[in-house]
Amino acid sequence: MTSVSRRRMLGGAVASAAALASLPSARAAAAPGDPAEPLEVDVAIVGGGLSGLTAARDLVAAGRSVVVLEARDRPGGRVYGLPLGDGTTSEGGAEFIGPTQDRIAALAQSLGVATFKTYNTGKNVYHRNGRRSLYATDGLLGAVPPDWGVIDLELALTRLGNAANKITPGTPWTAQGAEDWDSQTFHTWSRANTLSSGARFLLDAFISTTLSVRAKEVSLLYVLNYIAAAGNAGNPGDVDRLINTAGGGQESRFVGGSQEVPVRLAAALGDRVRLSAPVRRIAQEGDRVVVTADGVTVSAKRAVVAMSPAVTAKIEFLPGLPAARAQLAQRFPMGSVAKFVAVYPTPFWRAEGLTGQAVADSGAIDATFDNSPPDGSRGILMGFVSQTNLRSLRAGSAADLTAACLASFTKLFGAQAGAPTRTAHQIWDDEPWSGGGPTGITAPGVLTEFGPALRAPHGLVHWAGTETSDYWTGYMDGAVRSGERVAAELLPLL
Amino acid sequence: MTSVSRRRMLGGAVASAAALASLPSARAAAAPGDPAEPLEVDVAIVGGGLSGLTAARDLVAAGRSVVVLEARDRPGGRVYGLPLGDGTTSEGGAEFIGPTQDRIAALAQSLGVATFKTYNTGKNVYHRNGRRSLYATDGLLGAVPPDWGVIDLELALTRLGNAANKITPGTPWTAQGAEDWDSQTFHTWSRANTLSSGARFLLDAFISTTLSVRAKEVSLLYVLNYIAAAGNAGNPGDVDRLINTAGGGQESRFVGGSQEVPVRLAAALGDRVRLSAPVRRIAQEGDRVVVTADGVTVSAKRAVVAMSPAVTAKIEFLPGLPAARAQLAQRFPMGSVAKFVAVYPTPFWRAEGLTGQAVADSGAIDATFDNSPPDGSRGILMGFVSQTNLRSLRAGSAADLTAACLASFTKLFGAQAGAPTRTAHQIWDDEPWSGGGPTGITAPGVLTEFGPALRAPHGLVHWAGTETSDYWTGYMDGAVRSGERVAAELLPLL
Repeated sequence: MTSVSRRRMLGGAVASAAALASLPSARAAAAPGDPAEPLEVDVAIVGGGLSGLTAARDLVAAGRSVVVLEARDRPGGRVYGLPLGDGTTSEGGAEFIGPTQDRIAALAQSLGVATFKTYNTGKNVYHRNGRRSLYATDGLLGAVPPDWGVIDLELALTRLGNAANKITPGTPWTAQGAEDWDSQTFHTWSRANTLSSGARFLLDAFISTTLSVRAKEVSLLYVLNYIAAAGNAGNPGDVDRLINTAGGGQESRFVGGSQEVPVRLAAALGDRVRLSAPVRRIAQEGDRVVVTADGVTVSAKRAVVAMSPAVTAKIEFLPGLPAARAQLAQRFPMGSVAKFVAVYPTPFWRAEGLTGQAVADSGAIDATFDNSPPDGSRGILMGFVSQTNLRSLRAGSAADLTAACLASFTKLFGAQAGAPTRTAHQIWDDEPWSGGGPTGITAPGVLTEFGPALRAPHGLVHWAGTETSDYWTGYMDGAVRSGERVAAELLPLL
Repeated sequence: MTSVSRRRMLGGAVASAAALASLPSARAAAAPGDPAEPLEVDVAIVGGGLSGLTAARDLVAAGRSVVVLEARDRPGGRVYGLPLGDGTTSEGGAEFIGPTQDRIAALAQSLGVATFKTYNTGKNVYHRNGRRSLYATDGLLGAVPPDWGVIDLELALTRLGNAANKITPGTPWTAQGAEDWDSQTFHTWSRANTLSSGARFLLDAFISTTLSVRAKEVSLLYVLNYIAAAGNAGNPGDVDRLINTAGGGQESRFVGGSQEVPVRLAAALGDRVRLSAPVRRIAQEGDRVVVTADGVTVSAKRAVVAMSPAVTAKIEFLPGLPAARAQLAQRFPMGSVAKFVAVYPTPFWRAEGLTGQAVADSGAIDATFDNSPPDGSRGILMGFVSQTNLRSLRAGSAADLTAACLASFTKLFGAQAGAPTRTAHQIWDDEPWSGGGPTGITAPGVLTEFGPALRAPHGLVHWAGTETSDYWTGYMDGAVRSGERVAAELLPLL
């Protein structure tokens, strides 16, 4: 079979590029369990983010039939073009691409989505203890005042890198030091391995800007694996590649926005992609798996769940998941993150010799980037609102959040930053089918006790999603890798 | 209103004591979203464990109408009489009651359920490093060989107690030391505060036997709060009361088994209790909250969700939960625990001067109790299979698990323990509406960042469950307290 049986069933949610562009922003949700004749396919894919769409692409290319069931009214998952209110968008979710992220690169290239370098000319802003300073070096190191604090941070990063080099990305629980590393928080480790407040602040900022959690929430082993994962088969992961702009994970952006990749991929899959179809139940019956979504039921030989582990808890599995997988889903929480963007007539900070990148120890926003379009025809500043900051701002209104974010921008980039022509923000914690962002993290004890359950199939049900990737877990590249991996895993079984 | 409107709707699941006794052990589950006319009540209660049933009792006593929607085919939640196959049961879940647990005590007394002392005469067995020894003192302390390890452990327990005394149970995040205590695992703390392997083993055993997780999985602050919670308004919590049999949380048992309490409570509530009705959706519409369960829909003024936080992730909330509550549910995992019981013609260990209580560092079972009936007319040994032990045993069959548990019993209590007349076990990790047991725990960073969301109502939706209790959280007493608290919270609002 090369296409979905009874294709017309899908007609209501055709995912051509044109149709996607014209989809209303909110559709009336169908009641759970609406009766629907079952579709029959080889593989039912739950989740229309990059992972699920990539798996679908590979399976279709191999002549198999698929349906992708996506809960939202758009494809892309955590990849999203945030509407600015004037017909344009800015990256509201996953945004960057860098060296060794060759699977997302290949996918984008195949879809005709070009990349361009993140604006990175000039100095970065560092705001700490009420003082604003500028620094030139990429990454964390340049931000520390030039004293022994630099040595302190450098030693800590070297120790982290050395430990990460002992980890096989994707199976960190097999490392010799895993038990020790997974018995402590990153906070515990960083306090034991640094003396200066500058180094400690920047290690905290490393966790906050990378994972959008506090250093106390995450296992040292998880962080080491995240570092080890910042590479590919030929290039071991390292801290610099993870955190840097030039030469690192933030090096480039996509022309038209990162959402062009999933949007075009979904369009290519056509009516195989079913939007506004949240999956409620995955039931294995004999040699078939029956996936029940609002408005549609799919009977398949195999199913792929391409979602972050925490969100899989919303689905009823029959028979129930193995306890280790179910309990893993209780132990893989999402970070707390929002992206705030402000639009200006010009990228005025460039004229002042600034990259638009900043790190701050106070205020709503703890890290910023220049999100302007490739031609710099207007200026867009983007700031991350993460962890405690985001949670405390949620007590107020959207206007309060906007005001707090503009106060941050003003503190970092001057009065002009306080007068944008428009602003927008995307709060990932409020998306029920993301549950937060940018990725699932694990507290101590989880990877060593539950890690092997992450990718182990549950009968006819297989797992994907960036959290299941070996390299670049948490990134778009990891999502694509996981989709390719699960498709390869399935093909011999169909 | 004093009773459910259109009471006949509930006829299929009448919860009289007689009907409960005759319920089949498995009922065909209704399809989600079966059309059903809505019941109208003052309060819809989601979860028919001790917490939800207690809330229902108090609301009904105050003249309000309620429906209790329970996913299982029995009331009681984590309180369960495990069938032994001969028409009798043994406690398969929550079992004990002790001093200061006065709310479960009052409830049991009101229902005519008597208590009796846990068998505690003689010596306990301690098995470590391949050596079996006996000790007389209750609690952990007596188990350490009489050398400087005793001092090591005593100092550690004293430090824990001193820190716990600075915590207000139920709001540990308000304590002055909370940030430090919630930035580290209990493992980190115990390694930093002990030197002897004996003390370290027993601190690990304290976590495993109390919470059924590894010391690396749980925040020090969570453990301190658990200790602080082992008391009541007039009696500050302490370690001894938490872990001891005589004078502690394991002091007494219920005649007929602990399940008599929820079974009689459900019977008293009659057809207000709806079994086999898993709730799928809780939607707030104007001044009503509509709770949709398989086969029944309830429209109410308010709803109570009386479940462990992790399991609430299975329910769709409309509007969605506040992000902090949704993310708290991603961060409150259940322990991994099974109870294994073996039945013998007599409690033979008593004749050998043993209590039937043991602590072991190897094998399937790490702690045991004498679960014999009050008159000792036959012997029942109960063992906890927890955390890593349980997960590794799950790779095999039920027969493998039984064999491994009997090998543990034999090692601890001699050859007679290997020849029971019958055995049974209850694996809480396999119960989809428990997700593990005995309670939800938190890793570092959760209570300080998300704790205030634990009991904060979501519009018309209020929270109960033992995890929300101030005193004796994780215990039956905490469940009852949470039910009483939420009923008191609701009454002025109805």
